[in-house]
Amino acid sequence: MELGPPGGSGPAEPGPRLRGLRGADAAASASSLSRFGAEAGCRAPAVAAVLPAGGSGERMGVPTPKQFCPILERPLISYTLQALERVSWIKDIIVAVTRENMETMKGIIQRYQHKRISLVEAGVTRHRSIFNGLKALAEDQPNCRLSKPEVVIIHDAVRPFVEEDVLLKVVTAAQEHGASGAIRPLVSTVISPSADSCLDHSLERARYRASEMPQAFLFDVIYDAYQQCSDYDLEFGTECLHLALKYSHIKAKLVEGSPDLWKVTYKRDLYAAESIIKERISQKVCVVMDTKEDEEHVGHCLEEMLKTELNHVKVTSGQDLQQIILEQCYNFVCVNVMTSDFEETQRLLNMLEESNLSILYPVVVISVHFLDYESVPLGQKMEKVMQIREFAKEAKKRNILLSGLLIYFPQEEQKLRESLRQGTTIISALIKERNSGLIGQLLVA
Amino acid sequence: MELGPPGGSGPAEPGPRLRGLRGADAAASASSLSRFGAEAGCRAPAVAAVLPAGGSGERMGVPTPKQFCPILERPLISYTLQALERVSWIKDIIVAVTRENMETMKGIIQRYQHKRISLVEAGVTRHRSIFNGLKALAEDQPNCRLSKPEVVIIHDAVRPFVEEDVLLKVVTAAQEHGASGAIRPLVSTVISPSADSCLDHSLERARYRASEMPQAFLFDVIYDAYQQCSDYDLEFGTECLHLALKYSHIKAKLVEGSPDLWKVTYKRDLYAAESIIKERISQKVCVVMDTKEDEEHVGHCLEEMLKTELNHVKVTSGQDLQQIILEQCYNFVCVNVMTSDFEETQRLLNMLEESNLSILYPVVVISVHFLDYESVPLGQKMEKVMQIREFAKEAKKRNILLSGLLIYFPQEEQKLRESLRQGTTIISALIKERNSGLIGQLLVA
Repeated sequence: MELGPPGGSGPAEPGPRLRGLRGADAAASASSLSRFGAEAGCRAPAVAAVLPAGGSGERMGVPTPKQFCPILERPLISYTLQALERVSWIKDIIVAVTRENMETMKGIIQRYQHKRISLVEAGVTRHRSIFNGLKALAEDQPNCRLSKPEVVIIHDAVRPFVEEDVLLKVVTAAQEHGASGAIRPLVSTVISPSADSCLDHSLERARYRASEMPQAFLFDVIYDAYQQCSDYDLEFGTECLHLALKYSHIKAKLVEGSPDLWKVTYKRDLYAAESIIKERISQKVCVVMDTKEDEEHVGHCLEEMLKTELNHVKVTSGQDLQQIILEQCYNFVCVNVMTSDFEETQRLLNMLEESNLSILYPVVVISVHFLDYESVPLGQKMEKVMQIREFAKEAKKRNILLSGLLIYFPQEEQKLRESLRQGTTIISALIKERNSGLIGQLLVA
Repeated sequence: MELGPPGGSGPAEPGPRLRGLRGADAAASASSLSRFGAEAGCRAPAVAAVLPAGGSGERMGVPTPKQFCPILERPLISYTLQALERVSWIKDIIVAVTRENMETMKGIIQRYQHKRISLVEAGVTRHRSIFNGLKALAEDQPNCRLSKPEVVIIHDAVRPFVEEDVLLKVVTAAQEHGASGAIRPLVSTVISPSADSCLDHSLERARYRASEMPQAFLFDVIYDAYQQCSDYDLEFGTECLHLALKYSHIKAKLVEGSPDLWKVTYKRDLYAAESIIKERISQKVCVVMDTKEDEEHVGHCLEEMLKTELNHVKVTSGQDLQQIILEQCYNFVCVNVMTSDFEETQRLLNMLEESNLSILYPVVVISVHFLDYESVPLGQKMEKVMQIREFAKEAKKRNILLSGLLIYFPQEEQKLRESLRQGTTIISALIKERNSGLIGQLLVA
């Protein structure tokens, strides 16, 4: 896979361009287009995406429509936009939002620096919203900078974990068959109730599938279908594949999707999405040190311990910090040994603030300090390091979560290992929880 | 509702009896039985439950079968058993587990003090496991202490949030109709693929339902059906309601269930379950103080601040600690003012350890201390309060998560309020995350 992290293992690449990444961006885009040709065995089509986002969130049991519910303080729809944006061959993304949420949506696009987005007004039903999106893409619209694509993807605003892989599959299948959609096995048996709420019959689970998103269509196939379809379809229908079949006589090609395609429907799904996102941005930890040479350095021991104790986490040393920031590492352990101040932490914070890294996700920074009881009393050292509270307040304004960690540094090897192990546990907890309520604290290992 | 917390708002009552609660337990049981009669308009039947738990967890993508995956360090199936156990009118609970997991399951029952559980060996398919469970309940089994129930509930080991309410509904519907099952609206459209993986047709979503659990049957109806059904049914079937229809000619009554009935299927469902459980046990906070009389006490100010800032959380003062423990409050803020030691915290820890409260859920205890900079230097006070690390290590062995919180106590009203507000934020974060990696820390507000 040339563009983006491998399926499901990393966060979507962010919309805002990290400063200094113009060259890399352009290269990724070119390789992705060539990939399209190579894998699909056909020329790259012009592709746009339509996202109906006019829902009211009634199933969620919360007043905010679910696409605007915050996950790590950022609205769900922004994650979905980010997932589409990183696919360079999707030229335009049309979002249909209700008039009352139009300003909210504009604010989200601006704050999270989303690109290639156009907004249209949502209809009262999902189908009407999609139709409005398609109309904006059709050539006959006046004063419109959008041009008609060959293939249009339809996706849900509340399925944030869509990967380039499945988008590519539905688009190429749509090129060939006219229509395509992702499917998943059924989790529950589907039954048909009688009028008196008794079981009429149950369906054989293996013979049916759940129709999920994304779906893709030759633009003319789906636009023609919408132009022909009845008011009843627009009011009560739910399935675009059905419209393509009924009005354009196209049998959609079905593509197996991953479990990640699931739709955020209930409150529990928001919890799940938050945990998944937290997990994804916790896969890499960068250890930054104020000494480069000394191999015996206790900081190196901590780094080794982190590598051993944190399974599944990639621990890198921050030799080339600029590059690590570009690779979107959201967790930094900053070891201050040579000076008893925060010089190294300050330097790191400055670099993070200069980059755009924390626009999309809160970045965790743990400022590590060592304490030799014999030379400095605990209380005195703690009092000094407590200055971290002021730094943390400032950093929080830029979505950086700063905590301090004081590690006891005894002479005895065995005890030192115990201290480092406890430090590792604390680092792991801070990265995992990413709770802004605990910033500015000085933890002791 | 006489027994248990209202639907969905609190944790299931625990299996292990809290010391001293025998009387209350018996009363609850009696009122529940009378409630059965009153609400159902019929006599209370003898009810047993069968839980197939022989699954391998392949969809989860983890080596542990999903029913044994830990949530807050306790296996998922224990939560489901707890949910069934608290329903006093379910006489027996039969769990079907594979031979290789039999010892694990026995360990779980012992550790979490589950009652009324019998184990049978699982079959190679879900239907065969259920059938084994039913056989154990049928009268013709030799050397069996179980007796044949009138109604049998079939539930999944991986649906931990089942409420008494829906159990009562399916049981009474089964008494009347012979069979009953919980249903939910479909989240996705269901489609039928053709042999070449193209769309054959899509089902009209509104006409179908997802069949969920629990289901209930007159014992003879479902046992007869299993005795008659073919090997094909036992191998490839999934739906008990279908067997009752096909072999016993009973049309099951369908009952609308809540979203909470969902089945833990994928890894994201484990995340969701953990968040739901954490949220449920964070709804009550008890403030314990070492002074009862002084209304001007800064501890009271903290209590007021907690009430204001923590929405949806019930903050009670620990006047009658024994009673609060009985009511299953899992969060304690222990204010030490009158002495600079941990007297009050120690007293609380002793009481918690004497009760069985922390067997099922980790209990959070935050030991609060106040600091007047002018009289004692921060470092000195911190060093003193750092003793909390030793207490925390001991408490952790009993599933109690102890942290310390030092609140700055300035003379100026405005600054004090700011300190208390920050203390509240920290308390809220510790309760929400319930992360054992942060125990023994001294946080500063």
